[in-house]
This record gives sequence, C-alpha cells and structure tokens, in this order.
Amino acid sequence: MSVILRPVPVALIGLGGVGRAILTQLLSPPLSSRFQLILIANSRLSLSLPLPASPITPNNYLPILEAHGTQLDIPSVISVLSTHPDAPGILIDATGSDVVPALYSQILSMGVHLVTPNKKGFSGSLELYSRIQSASFPHGNALVYGESTVGAGLPILSTLKDLIATGDEVEKIEGVFSGTLSYIFNEFSKVGGGDVKFSEVVKIAKDKGYTEPDPRDDLSGTDVARKLTILSRLIPSSAPLPEGYASVPTQSLVPDVLADASSKEDYLSRLEEGDAYFSNLREEAAKEGKVVRYVGVIDLKAGKVEAKLERYPHDHAFATALQGSDNIISFHTKRYSPRPLIIQGAGAGADVTAMGCTSDLVKIHERIARRI
Amino acid sequence: MSVILRPVPVALIGLGGVGRAILTQLLSPPLSSRFQLILIANSRLSLSLPLPASPITPNNYLPILEAHGTQLDIPSVISVLSTHPDAPGILIDATGSDVVPALYSQILSMGVHLVTPNKKGFSGSLELYSRIQSASFPHGNALVYGESTVGAGLPILSTLKDLIATGDEVEKIEGVFSGTLSYIFNEFSKVGGGDVKFSEVVKIAKDKGYTEPDPRDDLSGTDVARKLTILSRLIPSSAPLPEGYASVPTQSLVPDVLADASSKEDYLSRLEEGDAYFSNLREEAAKEGKVVRYVGVIDLKAGKVEAKLERYPHDHAFATALQGSDNIISFHTKRYSPRPLIIQGAGAGADVTAMGCTSDLVKIHERIARRI
Repeated sequence: MSVILRPVPVALIGLGGVGRAILTQLLSPPLSSRFQLILIANSRLSLSLPLPASPITPNNYLPILEAHGTQLDIPSVISVLSTHPDAPGILIDATGSDVVPALYSQILSMGVHLVTPNKKGFSGSLELYSRIQSASFPHGNALVYGESTVGAGLPILSTLKDLIATGDEVEKIEGVFSGTLSYIFNEFSKVGGGDVKFSEVVKIAKDKGYTEPDPRDDLSGTDVARKLTILSRLIPSSAPLPEGYASVPTQSLVPDVLADASSKEDYLSRLEEGDAYFSNLREEAAKEGKVVRYVGVIDLKAGKVEAKLERYPHDHAFATALQGSDNIISFHTKRYSPRPLIIQGAGAGADVTAMGCTSDLVKIHERIARRI
Repeated sequence: MSVILRPVPVALIGLGGVGRAILTQLLSPPLSSRFQLILIANSRLSLSLPLPASPITPNNYLPILEAHGTQLDIPSVISVLSTHPDAPGILIDATGSDVVPALYSQILSMGVHLVTPNKKGFSGSLELYSRIQSASFPHGNALVYGESTVGAGLPILSTLKDLIATGDEVEKIEGVFSGTLSYIFNEFSKVGGGDVKFSEVVKIAKDKGYTEPDPRDDLSGTDVARKLTILSRLIPSSAPLPEGYASVPTQSLVPDVLADASSKEDYLSRLEEGDAYFSNLREEAAKEGKVVRYVGVIDLKAGKVEAKLERYPHDHAFATALQGSDNIISFHTKRYSPRPLIIQGAGAGADVTAMGCTSDLVKIHERIARRI
C-alpha cells in the first residue's frame, strides 16, 4: 500500500556551496517526493519553478537562473510561499547574510516556516532572537529549525532539545565546534608530539579549503562563540548573552603581533611571527602530558560561556578521538553523569551541512504534511 | 506571552524500573504540562487517573494501585485512549512482554499512538513488523516511536532515520550495543592488558545490577541481535530478516561446556569452566595489539548483519573511548566517510531509557498538540 502525502512548497535562497548541496538533495529521492521546489535564488536573481519546459537539475540551474531570473525581491518570495495553494510553505535561508535573518520574525508572522544553516539570526542580539521566538510556534503557527547552525548534520541541537524537553539538567557542554580549528589543532598538537609550525598548518588548511577565504574569520573564534550562543539560548537556566556572540568571552588566535595586519595577504605572509607563541603553548602542554585544543564550553554551574584554548590529557577523547575536521560535543547532564553523551563526526562540509537543513525540512514535513 | 497547548492523554502500562522512571518524568516539569496521565498499570492491575482525592506521585502510586486498582484489561485501556475527549491518546508499553506488541497493529488501527522501549514488536517476525508498519502513519493516522529500543536515550534511531530520509546511503553500522557486554569487556580486555578472569567480571556485573537476573540473557547475544534487527529494518536496502533477531547470526558467549547448565545458579557456579576460553581470546588479541569487544555489525556492502566478538586495535574508539556500560555506535555512510558519525554514552539504565520514551512523547506532542 502506497500513501501519497501532499508535497510541501519550498523556496531556496542562497546558492553557495551549502545552497547547491541543498538543491541537489531536494531534487533527489527521497526528498523530491516530499517537497515541491517553487523558487530558487542567489543574492541577485530569483527563478520561479517549475519551468515551462524541462525540469531544473543541479547541473543546469545556473545558466537558466542567469538567463531567465528576475531581480530577487524577498517580500515577494514570502508572499508566494504564504499564498501558494499548498501554503504555508518553507523558506530555506542558505545565505550567510544578516539581511534575511532581520526579516525572520516577519516571515514567521506570515505563517511561512523557516529552515536555515545561517547562524546570524540566532547568535546576534537577544532582542532579534526574542522576536524570532515570539513569532514562531507555539506563539505563532510557523516553525523555525536551524539544526545545521551547530555541528552541521550532527544531531546536536535536536539532542539538546530532547534532554531539556524531558527534564534533564544540563551541567556542562564542552566541545570542539569548529571544523577548521579542529583540523588545525589535530595537526599541530598531537599525542605523539610534533614540530610542525602553526603557520604551516594554517596555510595547509587554507589550501585544502578548510578555512574561510580570510582565515582570520576562523581564528578569531567568532564562529565558535556564535555556536555557543545558539546552544546556550536553548538552556533555560543559562546566561542571557544580551549581545549574543559578542557577549561570549572569546580567545582570538590572531596573535597580537598580527592584529595590525592590513589584509589577509599581509596576515598570511606575516603568520610566522606568531609561531613562537603557539610552539610555546604546545611545549607547555606537552610537559603536562597534554595536547592543545580550541574548545567551546558552557558551564552551567560556573555560569560561564567561553571559547578558548584548553589543554587535554593524552587519554581524553578530545586528544585521541579527533581526526580531520571532526567536531566532537559532549553533554554532561544529571542523567548522563559521570560519563557524558558524546556526538562526533564531520561538522563542516557542504553535503553534511545541507543534510542538517534537509533533515529539518523532513521534521517540518512530518508536522504539517497532509494526505492528498 | 505564554501559550497553552492542550495536554495529550497518556496511559502507561508496565511499572518495572523503566516504567517507574517514565512515571517520574511524566509527573515532573516540563512534561507534566504537556501530557495528562489518565491510566497506569502493572502486569495485573490498572488505575484510572486523576484520582478523586490527592494527586498521584512517584512515591504513593504503588499502595494506591494495589488498594484501588482493577484487573488490567488492555482492550479497555485502548478504548479509553481512543474515546477520550482529547483523543487520540498515547499508549506507553513499558512491559517486556510480547503480549502487548502482538496488539500493536490493532492499537494503531484504532488511532491510538504508541511509544515503547519494548524491542519485541520490532525485532520479531517480519510479518508482525509489517503489520505494525501498515497500521501506522502514513498508512494510518497513528504514530509509533521506539527510540529507546536501541541505545536507550541516545539518539540512534532518530539519527539513522534522518540519514535515510535525507538521501544518505548507509554503508556500515558498527557498535557496542549492549551496556552489559560493554561493561564486561571494558573490564576484561583493556588496552593496558589485565589478568582478571571472565567469570569474575560477569559476577561483578551481576552484583552491580548490570545484567539481567539470568546473565545468560545478556551473554547469549540475543539483545544485540534484536537491536541490529530494529536498525536494519530502517534501511531500505538491508536484508529482510524474516524471523527477526532469530535470522541474525549471533555468537553466544555461553560457552559450549556450560550449554547444559540446568539453571542460572548452576550456570554461575560453573562459569569458571569457560575462563580458559576467554583468557585465550584475550591473549590472542593482545598479541596483535588489540582488545576484544562484543559488537553488532550491519554491513550493507557485504549484505551481512552479525552479532559477534571482534578485535580492535588499541587506538580504535571501541578500545579507548568506552567506560562503564557505555554504548558506542558508528554510522559509516556516503556522506560520513571516511570518518563515521559516532554517538556514545550510557545505553542502559532506567532514567536514560525512560528519557528515550519521553523524548518520543514530545515528538508526538509536537505533531499532534493543538492550542486550547
């Protein structure tokens, strides 16, 4: 017996690496039967679907968008989603901008559901975050999901929500939240020792495409602080963080001596000036039988949220278990004590980040889809 | 602004360790506002709620049930859930019996949702499993969730469902699925070596309450085979397992020499007869720089589902990361490759198993709750 559920209309804004991977997943089974893609857009142009002629594919969308797209107008995209015959639809904000997040509460108020890998709406000011919460279910009708804002496709937010919704008490969340900084420190500070220079590892990470175009965006720790803000706001007893990530004490790895670098090129060419600082850190840790990792910590007992360098003994999971650009997040709770609940795996990359978004789409589909 | 959603009626059958922990969680915030407990029952007696006088608590329910309970009649429990003014309600089957699972398809057909930690309905014959699937959403209206059947409160089933629903391809699932066998082998076969006898570790595990009353129920591997069956059936391309767990090749750890033990007392008293066998296994592994673990493997490429003893090198997560009675499950997929997605933590215990059930309740609540 086969049962057909009404496909939910979806619009996708943002066609960078993650947006393209979302597009690919949406156009493939099993998602293609659950969702009807009615619009795609990059930062300039939008294209209404389905096309009159042949269907759109991950390979042909770009020239068609360039040739037939019309100027992107976000209010009209929202209007299309809220007035569609199968409304309400879902907007996927796969942009990295803060323009769309500023509109989230308005979008939700029109009954349009939201899925996004964009951290800006949830990790900025408490005022913006509260407006989004007030406009979404259960206060309003529309749902908002952002699983991939932390740990990409790893079930981090859903697990934290489950712990809290079932009455567990979070005591501490500690983890390596940045794929870039995971890679850099897994290579730089190993259990077996090592003498590679910090600047060399950063350059290799950049060449492999693991860093943002300007590596300072990763090394500043801001991305980790944003993720900590998103997690922290799900915990009722946690600090309010009125300015979001800017309220999180965050250790920058851009050495003081390079703080005045005029450009990323200048920064990269002068990166060696910081090598002595990091080599010294590694040696100090090694003397204690430890490695160095860049971690985020939410300590409910101490009332602290911090992004910082920390030392871990050689038999600690953060020292032994990590490879490549893996994330690892440990939840210490009243129930998961003394040993934490741990989730580990690739925390960055277009496919797994897209999966975080498409799994959110499935959860919305489960909550709203009706039979034909 | 506070929004009140209509509480969903719930009946709880089974008041052993897990059932009592579910009761405690259901009666406490934040769950007490989402659900209305309308009936509790053990294997003999049921009690309709709310009581005319004082409310029920985790401390007072037992004497009240004994004094005022009426004989348990499952059809009438289902009838109460399907005809309640806020119907449909949710039945929690916290029994370990196979009587209730035989009724699942009938329960679901009446529109009553189901949550259970009981593996029997999902890991037995394919015929029973198919009947349950056919009676539940999307074929019928009622939902069935069993997160805690594998890994207790760890998000194992939900993660596998997300991977599959978003179009990932599972290549291999490998893990330590039994809290009891995790404890026994973590103690018996350590990276640093050891000379403790297998029989001693089993007796300690039994004294600590980590094993079933008859340890042969754990050492037979059947519990692991049931969990593998439940996972395997979620993967579209996996083997059909017509007889469920009985179709899974399963290595029993009850040594041949003890296969004729007449009782658990006889078995425990003669357990030392198997020590040489296990010590030999440990020595063979140690020569290869490995430890011994009892694992479950679903290998899609090889088309195999197996529960067995396996050897892992000293730097493998199954050798280094496990402590106590932790479960660890690794998902090797097309997207999570070459490094798997790993979930680790307590995989047994009343509180975390109850949490697997109550998180399922929350998911059903999210899908069906309406505003007052």
